Amino acid sequence: MENFDFYNPVNILFGKGKIAEINKHISKDAKILMTYGGGSIKKNGVYDQVVDALKGYEIIEFGGIEPNPHFETLMKAVEIVKSEKIDFLLAVGGGSVLDGTKFIAAATYFEGDAWDILAKRAPITKAVELGAVLTLAATGSEMNNGGVVTKAATKEKKAFGNPLLFPKFSVLDPETTYSLPKRQVTNGIVDAYVHVMEQYLTYPVNSPVQDRFAEGILLTLLEEGPKALASDTPDYENRANLMWAATMALNGLIGMGVKSDWATHMIGHELTAFHGIDHAVTLAIVLPGLLTQLKEKRSEKLLQYAERVWNITEGSDEEKKALAIDKTEAFFNQVGIKTRLSEHNVGQDSIDVIASRFEERGFVGMLPDVEVKDVAEILVSRL
Amino acid sequence: MENFDFYNPVNILFGKGKIAEINKHISKDAKILMTYGGGSIKKNGVYDQVVDALKGYEIIEFGGIEPNPHFETLMKAVEIVKSEKIDFLLAVGGGSVLDGTKFIAAATYFEGDAWDILAKRAPITKAVELGAVLTLAATGSEMNNGGVVTKAATKEKKAFGNPLLFPKFSVLDPETTYSLPKRQVTNGIVDAYVHVMEQYLTYPVNSPVQDRFAEGILLTLLEEGPKALASDTPDYENRANLMWAATMALNGLIGMGVKSDWATHMIGHELTAFHGIDHAVTLAIVLPGLLTQLKEKRSEKLLQYAERVWNITEGSDEEKKALAIDKTEAFFNQVGIKTRLSEHNVGQDSIDVIASRFEERGFVGMLPDVEVKDVAEILVSRL
Repeated sequence: MENFDFYNPVNILFGKGKIAEINKHISKDAKILMTYGGGSIKKNGVYDQVVDALKGYEIIEFGGIEPNPHFETLMKAVEIVKSEKIDFLLAVGGGSVLDGTKFIAAATYFEGDAWDILAKRAPITKAVELGAVLTLAATGSEMNNGGVVTKAATKEKKAFGNPLLFPKFSVLDPETTYSLPKRQVTNGIVDAYVHVMEQYLTYPVNSPVQDRFAEGILLTLLEEGPKALASDTPDYENRANLMWAATMALNGLIGMGVKSDWATHMIGHELTAFHGIDHAVTLAIVLPGLLTQLKEKRSEKLLQYAERVWNITEGSDEEKKALAIDKTEAFFNQVGIKTRLSEHNVGQDSIDVIASRFEERGFVGMLPDVEVKDVAEILVSRL
Repeated sequence: MENFDFYNPVNILFGKGKIAEINKHISKDAKILMTYGGGSIKKNGVYDQVVDALKGYEIIEFGGIEPNPHFETLMKAVEIVKSEKIDFLLAVGGGSVLDGTKFIAAATYFEGDAWDILAKRAPITKAVELGAVLTLAATGSEMNNGGVVTKAATKEKKAFGNPLLFPKFSVLDPETTYSLPKRQVTNGIVDAYVHVMEQYLTYPVNSPVQDRFAEGILLTLLEEGPKALASDTPDYENRANLMWAATMALNGLIGMGVKSDWATHMIGHELTAFHGIDHAVTLAIVLPGLLTQLKEKRSEKLLQYAERVWNITEGSDEEKKALAIDKTEAFFNQVGIKTRLSEHNVGQDSIDVIASRFEERGFVGMLPDVEVKDVAEILVSRL
């Protein structure tokens, strides 16, 4: 196991009815900016629950944060935070609203061009306090300090993070996910699954606790994911387990002391930036290609994954690894995701553009085993 | 899954050499009380590492915190904290030193008889800031806000806890455990194991993530525990995995949303209070008796435990459950613990005294399935 620092002060309020408790965690004299997305929270009752819980507070609203939140949109919110002297940001939504709100929190006090927070990883030294009411189990943003923001003008999608950006609290009420369209439930399941894989399916470092936690989340997603999609009537326990699994997938814990990758995300981000493909869908497209490319280098962890997650115990090592990758892709297909680039009208021309972007950047993920030259090969294998 | 709140702001500094970083986490002008136990830290180099890291700080020492720390001892430290105007408590040691230091932190600002913190669960409203350098993987105190303190005069052992008592940071350097006697390594393994069992082996509430995390910790302890004891030369990875497993066993996470028990601890505490038996040994004595007593009521979780932790897949349900309990006790024996009361010179007369104490108290653990009248029966089965 490698040395690590772990710190996660997010107060998780989990379960039905917990939105009512948010006023215990926000200073009584705070002026609140409530951020949200396309307005579904006004139809499913979540907005009303939040407003009820915040009676007596002064609240300003900022809706319209889009999926893959745009830098341009968020900077409008920053202006409101400054001009209205906002003390607290309350994000009500899924990962995009939460990520975007973290960026607003950081950009408000940033001196200079706030795009540098993303483009140059410029240091964040102060941030507006924030909290979250999660309505979609997927990104883990509710219990970490990072986010991803897209500049619409240049089609650049970039990550940022800082300990000042941990939500002070996050409400995880599984009932808020009942009204989600199936596509978003599917995306959440796959997003969480690949978050785990980025931290788990790399190289052994003798980390049995982290490995078993990761496998436990994967197995839960494999069991609970299809259940959520099989029925038109949401089941509380099922949604609760998906929600907790997704949060645990990316709150830092399973990545402690192990080798993380994130190459699948880096490549996926480009597919979203250029083609607007849903984030989770890009991960489901890229991951099988990346794992196939790394079948020899990551042999040990692939075999462990095959045995412990897929219960594959027969055949040669080569067969086991290939079957585990096939089953992974089949799971993505089973929950409704098309995992081939050609199914999303992406062709060789796009692959060339994306490959050249990585050539400029000079790296892919956090491990040296995925090289810049591999990006094109991985994407071609997914046509 | 049941509703829950999860909050754990402890900054974990994990790995070799991490003691050197503690000065990043203590205010430069803090006056520090460094607490420790019998002085082994002065022989194994830990004391020197701490003092090196704290060059420039004003430090007062308070040694001599005993196993099952005494209220009487800790109140002496409280006097020093007050008279010397201490700003920061640094606990250097195992669970007893950490628990004791948390009590010092709470008792310093407590008005009235500080024993009420334990006896009456009197509210704690302010505490001295504290940090920890852990030297023994066992209790989980390094990443939770609770502790257990014993009043020597009356042989009462009681628990306390408060969010103000989370350590600000805890250093977990596996190398600090190299010089431990085997008895303490064994105790740590069994303590952590039973911590997990208290939260896991109760009733199903549809919590697959928590269950698999719990099972992952148990499996790790089963694998790594005997390895630690088989060799006279400590292995870094082995000690690292035991340390992280013990911390994860009682930092709150696996207990979220599930039904926890703690009856084994409650009964065990009395054996320690009256007979001075090591805490972990009392747990190893009581648990097999308690599980046997609850074989029918906790049937579902026992069968899950038998299958997933012990890989018991054949035989009738009754046979599976009995075998899982037998294997659990055999594991405790394997790591060197005597699990019968008669082996510790405890007889029927003591059982009578302990049983009458529970009759006065009116409850055992947190679940109604272990009744006051069961205590004597469980203990008699362990003679």
